[in-house]
Amino acid sequence: MQIINNPKKSEWTSILKRPTQTVDDIEGVVNEIFIDVSKNGHNAVKKYTSKFDGILLESNSVALEEIKAAIRQVPQKLQNAIKQAKANIETFHIAQKTSKIEIETAVGVKCWQEKRPIQKVGLYIPGGTAPLFSTVLMLAVPAQIAGCKEIVLCSPPNTKGELAPEILFAAQLCGVTKIIKVGGIQAIAGLTFGTESIPKVYKIFGPGNQFVTVAKQLATKYGVAIDMPAGPSELLVFADDTANASYVASDLLSQAEHGIDSQVILVSTSKSLIDKVSKEVTKQLGVLPRRAIAEKAIANSKLIYVETDDLALELIDEYGPEHYIICCKNEDLYIDNINNAGSVFIGHYTPESAGDYASGTNHTLPTNGFSKAYSGVNLDSFMKSITFQKISKEGILNIGETIELMAEAEGLQAHKNAVSIRLKDLKP
Amino acid sequence: MQIINNPKKSEWTSILKRPTQTVDDIEGVVNEIFIDVSKNGHNAVKKYTSKFDGILLESNSVALEEIKAAIRQVPQKLQNAIKQAKANIETFHIAQKTSKIEIETAVGVKCWQEKRPIQKVGLYIPGGTAPLFSTVLMLAVPAQIAGCKEIVLCSPPNTKGELAPEILFAAQLCGVTKIIKVGGIQAIAGLTFGTESIPKVYKIFGPGNQFVTVAKQLATKYGVAIDMPAGPSELLVFADDTANASYVASDLLSQAEHGIDSQVILVSTSKSLIDKVSKEVTKQLGVLPRRAIAEKAIANSKLIYVETDDLALELIDEYGPEHYIICCKNEDLYIDNINNAGSVFIGHYTPESAGDYASGTNHTLPTNGFSKAYSGVNLDSFMKSITFQKISKEGILNIGETIELMAEAEGLQAHKNAVSIRLKDLKP
Repeated sequence: MQIINNPKKSEWTSILKRPTQTVDDIEGVVNEIFIDVSKNGHNAVKKYTSKFDGILLESNSVALEEIKAAIRQVPQKLQNAIKQAKANIETFHIAQKTSKIEIETAVGVKCWQEKRPIQKVGLYIPGGTAPLFSTVLMLAVPAQIAGCKEIVLCSPPNTKGELAPEILFAAQLCGVTKIIKVGGIQAIAGLTFGTESIPKVYKIFGPGNQFVTVAKQLATKYGVAIDMPAGPSELLVFADDTANASYVASDLLSQAEHGIDSQVILVSTSKSLIDKVSKEVTKQLGVLPRRAIAEKAIANSKLIYVETDDLALELIDEYGPEHYIICCKNEDLYIDNINNAGSVFIGHYTPESAGDYASGTNHTLPTNGFSKAYSGVNLDSFMKSITFQKISKEGILNIGETIELMAEAEGLQAHKNAVSIRLKDLKP
Repeated sequence: MQIINNPKKSEWTSILKRPTQTVDDIEGVVNEIFIDVSKNGHNAVKKYTSKFDGILLESNSVALEEIKAAIRQVPQKLQNAIKQAKANIETFHIAQKTSKIEIETAVGVKCWQEKRPIQKVGLYIPGGTAPLFSTVLMLAVPAQIAGCKEIVLCSPPNTKGELAPEILFAAQLCGVTKIIKVGGIQAIAGLTFGTESIPKVYKIFGPGNQFVTVAKQLATKYGVAIDMPAGPSELLVFADDTANASYVASDLLSQAEHGIDSQVILVSTSKSLIDKVSKEVTKQLGVLPRRAIAEKAIANSKLIYVETDDLALELIDEYGPEHYIICCKNEDLYIDNINNAGSVFIGHYTPESAGDYASGTNHTLPTNGFSKAYSGVNLDSFMKSITFQKISKEGILNIGETIELMAEAEGLQAHKNAVSIRLKDLKP
């Protein structure tokens, strides 16, 4: 890990730069598959699943028997762990329910705001060597609490045409209404246009590789909403002398093992802590099974010493980390004065992996500095707010002239007329 | 207007089709201007302002004297109207404030969610013949309530290099921190990359023509968030025999005058009402100053008769209107059973133009069926929610094993280690 002492502000941008992603060159492929799926539906999806996942599936829907078999395959201890995690996620997301907001803005002018569930949502769960079933919990639990009617899960099959039993177990536990064995660009295209087996949805959630990310962005051009643009995972730790260096090192490594383009940063006002953490990282790295990956990510990563709390806070806000760990004496300073972060982990016994699995917060979070404008996935991500207004005769008499004046000044006579025609009846 | 009787469900999609927009062919221009502005900053912006707006501006910042002069130019009556509208919008958006949500998901595991303002926002206000100052209120008022630090307004200058006085008046009234005379693609590019005079922002709001819309979508590729994809305005009215046909006609026309691609739809369970409204539209259309525009929009529009309330509701939900007026006996049925709409107007004295200006609800709403997944602009649009967690020793003992089991099953050993290393110290 690179140690940086007291960087000048003019250097921050280059120091805090995320590992680059190239997007343009894969847009062509993504476009092509979208057009094919929009025209040829299931047949196109089948073709790409055979090409990319190495399995020709006549039907890609998951049958009830497959789910039952999967449940038997997941060890009881893991089932219980998943259930505890689910319960905590549920508790936190149920607490996010908001009630109707109702107010009379002027006498006779009643306005209210209500949230209603997005009726059809698609959840994308990546495949690969390890099944990321925790993401099923993070997306399906709030979708179910929100009241989404169709909760469609897509995940790429292995070469035997199967999904991991843990994914199926989590999906049935959390109220997913349809599970489909399809991944990659063809999954996102299927959810965008609908096929014989994949329902068209209104919003697509979930992480994925660069192809999936570009596909999700393309989906928005076809009128489908997405949770957020996804990028490689990242963690920023602020720690001072009171922190435990081996704990901090273990947290940095937990993010570094995600991928070679993950980024971890330690910001500290203590040179000695930086020194200790650096040594601990090297020590702990040696025994990791995903060492090869973590090592490359660590090579990209930085230990930054700054002289004052003010500078530290400014730098953290400039970075806008996805995950932000606070391990220092004056916690409140580092909680209250931060504007940009996805999820925050406070104190010595709050490892970032707690939020990945079981504390109850959501782990689908804004990366790449998007925390400056985006929230992580939460209950509201599965709902939209609708406004309502009901105006009485008295109400329109109260605000009618204001509407007339403003509409006229904007040159919109028909807007004015809609009020005048009513006022004429009320003030004969 | 085309009258359609009892359409089959299989025909709904084609009947409810929005006037088409082509997007692909303007992407090239938008891309080019983005690259130029990212490289050449103010000089590029100056060039495009000269080219598209016909005025060469050495400086595009609005000076304090210009604002003062503008205030003198806006008639006192209009100033008062704008102030009343602002007060109502403020009342409704302040009511949307939510407080911190805090909960202990398991003993010793404290999780909370807090909303914090997006620090830098850009508001785009279109130019053209009529100054849309009402949109300034709709965007700047919630931005100020949210606590956004930099509120940057961009709007294209006229050929004299000026902005409409009403826009300047509204901007200073609502706490805009910087006003810049720049419009079109170059404005969105400026807000995306920042120039010598335009600050780089985190989220861009506001309506615009197709060029602005495509530019906003391109901005998202560079990490800037946007409020929502915008399309032509639209209105769906449900009315039965109890409705006043001339009121309904005036509402339909108020949307139709926006542009030739606006769409207005009447759904009714009463053939006689459809007949009366059709006649009223023709009558009222004759005297409109924007008749040429409204006439073309009306030609695209439909009066649809359906036999039952259930069919009506299903059809409305399928369309997902931006504006939805309910004028019927059984209002609650049409309020409670709708899932997809931007803003809803209820009763005989609630014209859609009330929401455009002064009732207090926001008029920046999802068009093109996006109400299926998107909210209209509201207070939360200017904030993001951050989650926090603090776990005690007891807490990590409670959920530690669950995290270990799940991390291991996902093949993420370093995630597990971050917990094990702590548990080892606590359970020696």
